[in-house]
Amino acid sequence: MDLTEQLAAAVGAAHVLTGDDIGEDYSHDEAITSAGQRPAYVVRPGETSEVAAVLRIANEHSVPVTGRGAGTGMSGAGVAVEGGILVSFERMNQVLEIDEANHMAVVQPGVTLDELDKVLAPRGLVYPVFPGEYSASLGGNVNTNAGGMRAVKYGVTRHHVIGLEAVLAAGDVIRTGGKIVKSSTGYDLTQLILGSEGTLALVTEATLRLYPRAEHQATVLAPFATLDEVTEAIPRIVASGVGPLILEYIDMMTMAAMSYQFGIDLGIPEDVKSTALAYLVVMMEQTHADRLDDDVEALAGLVSDLGALDVYVLPAGSAAQLIDAREKAFWVAKSAGADEIIDIVVPRASVPDFMRRVSELAQANETLVAGCGHAGDGNVHMSVFQKDPEVLATVMHGLFAIGTDLGGAISGEHGLGTEKKKYFMQLEDPVKIDLMRGIKAAFDPNGILNPGKVFD
Amino acid sequence: MDLTEQLAAAVGAAHVLTGDDIGEDYSHDEAITSAGQRPAYVVRPGETSEVAAVLRIANEHSVPVTGRGAGTGMSGAGVAVEGGILVSFERMNQVLEIDEANHMAVVQPGVTLDELDKVLAPRGLVYPVFPGEYSASLGGNVNTNAGGMRAVKYGVTRHHVIGLEAVLAAGDVIRTGGKIVKSSTGYDLTQLILGSEGTLALVTEATLRLYPRAEHQATVLAPFATLDEVTEAIPRIVASGVGPLILEYIDMMTMAAMSYQFGIDLGIPEDVKSTALAYLVVMMEQTHADRLDDDVEALAGLVSDLGALDVYVLPAGSAAQLIDAREKAFWVAKSAGADEIIDIVVPRASVPDFMRRVSELAQANETLVAGCGHAGDGNVHMSVFQKDPEVLATVMHGLFAIGTDLGGAISGEHGLGTEKKKYFMQLEDPVKIDLMRGIKAAFDPNGILNPGKVFD
Repeated sequence: MDLTEQLAAAVGAAHVLTGDDIGEDYSHDEAITSAGQRPAYVVRPGETSEVAAVLRIANEHSVPVTGRGAGTGMSGAGVAVEGGILVSFERMNQVLEIDEANHMAVVQPGVTLDELDKVLAPRGLVYPVFPGEYSASLGGNVNTNAGGMRAVKYGVTRHHVIGLEAVLAAGDVIRTGGKIVKSSTGYDLTQLILGSEGTLALVTEATLRLYPRAEHQATVLAPFATLDEVTEAIPRIVASGVGPLILEYIDMMTMAAMSYQFGIDLGIPEDVKSTALAYLVVMMEQTHADRLDDDVEALAGLVSDLGALDVYVLPAGSAAQLIDAREKAFWVAKSAGADEIIDIVVPRASVPDFMRRVSELAQANETLVAGCGHAGDGNVHMSVFQKDPEVLATVMHGLFAIGTDLGGAISGEHGLGTEKKKYFMQLEDPVKIDLMRGIKAAFDPNGILNPGKVFD
Repeated sequence: MDLTEQLAAAVGAAHVLTGDDIGEDYSHDEAITSAGQRPAYVVRPGETSEVAAVLRIANEHSVPVTGRGAGTGMSGAGVAVEGGILVSFERMNQVLEIDEANHMAVVQPGVTLDELDKVLAPRGLVYPVFPGEYSASLGGNVNTNAGGMRAVKYGVTRHHVIGLEAVLAAGDVIRTGGKIVKSSTGYDLTQLILGSEGTLALVTEATLRLYPRAEHQATVLAPFATLDEVTEAIPRIVASGVGPLILEYIDMMTMAAMSYQFGIDLGIPEDVKSTALAYLVVMMEQTHADRLDDDVEALAGLVSDLGALDVYVLPAGSAAQLIDAREKAFWVAKSAGADEIIDIVVPRASVPDFMRRVSELAQANETLVAGCGHAGDGNVHMSVFQKDPEVLATVMHGLFAIGTDLGGAISGEHGLGTEKKKYFMQLEDPVKIDLMRGIKAAFDPNGILNPGKVFD
């Protein structure tokens, strides 16, 4: 049997695509600079045993394998390797269990955040990781350690995934962790596989922690005269203990683009608009309405003291519009012709310093750098507009060098994939990269799992 | 130069002990069954470069190395290997930085929890991991992924350590993570080293997340007619969203022993005492006094509905006594002659089932099994009293088999060390143990770091 026939025997002929039968969508994710790559084979397993069979075949033939969820990744990690197999989890899309007694969900990798939330909302439960894209799959979220706006309160994917079923390169199926909230029982393989971008194993099931859904929410918008004042205010708000659900900054340019593109009118007077160079967005949630009111009042006072030009508690409709637009900021940047998108993370209190140095770098290179970000986490999303590839390369390297110099990391939540790998290889300690290579070899001796992603 | 001279050149002759100069305390931790082992050498490095020098020497001579913090571990992980070097971190005991802007602390491994808390309290900050033993070191906590009573609210060590400096077997010093609260930048080496019981690297510095200290606390004690009712109540309390800081069960026997040993009088009427077979202890904390009052009232109502014989809000003094006694439950068990201590963790909602099956196992083997535990985490601490070694072995294997059968793990927070290694090797998937061995080999090709701990 040739490879196609073997794969067909593993998952059924209807679920193996080759050649022109492979739709264009399978050749890319949403990474802004990735050229994409059409896989040689797309397979769509329906269950874990089929994933294991595919990996046994691939391992035997040393054919590279890339896992793919919804294809909404930002780093190229879910894009196939030339001549390789793309394992699409679109058919493994079941919420296997909502365990209300333990407050946990067990999901297949192809379940989207949106689908999960629809199941949880009527039960008064929430899986609290909300990256901007709700059509993203849980499998993709696990593999990139996805974050999002609510991370300032709840943390990221890593903090809520406590068990995995995963298939190793040779086809062995392992279960790590489980419905237990703590364990000191050997190395934490769950945490190791989490965020490994499909290079260590294919995740076929994840156990997620759930939480009671807070009923009451309020959104506060505060314009500031300078970006510096906003970023200086952030750590003070975190330290105050008001416990925001969302704590974002949006620069003037991004706010203008978002307002224009989505037709949002937040009712901010023209005189304030014309003097505000940056905005602070704070969303609060509480279990009790009276506590929310008190918290919002305390926050408003604090934000005023920190220099806000004004403080607006947004009506629910406007708030939803603003948060929705903020989540789509990536698309605004893409449609505006951004040449690169970054998601550097630095210590929260270093954001002002980071922004000043970025501004100097941008000016020195006549490059436009605009953005918004999860400032409460020190995670800054920036769009870089520079058509000259050499200048762009200088600016990009400079941005990451500033970030790492401040004790930060190249990616806060998007992952490295192919897009950011180069900078990682340049800036990371070679001793650590060697350790990672050693770990990779222990999991995947033949190097078939998503080779060329994260590191070379 | 012989090995002693080389070590003396590395850390100073005054900080190398051999032979009878090695005090008895260096030969054990607090594991109840471990025989202990006097190391061939004790070295007391004063800084990271000295740790690196010691490891280079040890690696060259293939001499086993065990790191040791305060020696309060419960699993034998901090006990030396025969003929090996014990690296005691007693001189690396500085709080290097309290970063109030980022809400983080940077500490050396020899800092104790008590010392750290003394520095944080006046600043209104808290490092929220409180395992029972405050004389424990942060280095030990990192290596065992220590938990404790507050884990039901805050999680365990793993959730608050976001950066490490560590020395690899060959003497290379790496830094992982940092003052960043999220990252998707390669494999998470911080999480991998965390809980690895000194088998992957020696941790020389840790960056910890800090939180605002909640000012208001209240403790609720509720006697129940049966242990089953208490353990059935636990997941309902978690699901209610009241967000307890501490959520423990104490069985009648343990409560009686604690009360007797520490002379606690909680003012429970005799008629209630005589019918209560188990107690629920719930501690709440809040930033506002009025919210605390409301939460306590809601909790008291809920606990009554769940079948409590009565509900007591303890006066501050009694509450502190009770919590203190609960923290010392291990010592009560030890002084009562317990033959084994376990800290199995199971899914929270499986605790009732677990306890029923344990009770059957104990009765069938005429063995006394008593305890208390972090029931909110599903983490059960039990003392096993059985003098016959064969029967004891049967009971121990049975306990772990029940725990793993329910989706649990052998240790929730103590670690495996040498004490629980045997059961791990018997009950864990050999494919996963092989993966762990591969990871170990990538970090420590000569196998000098704490060999014989966690797995063989």
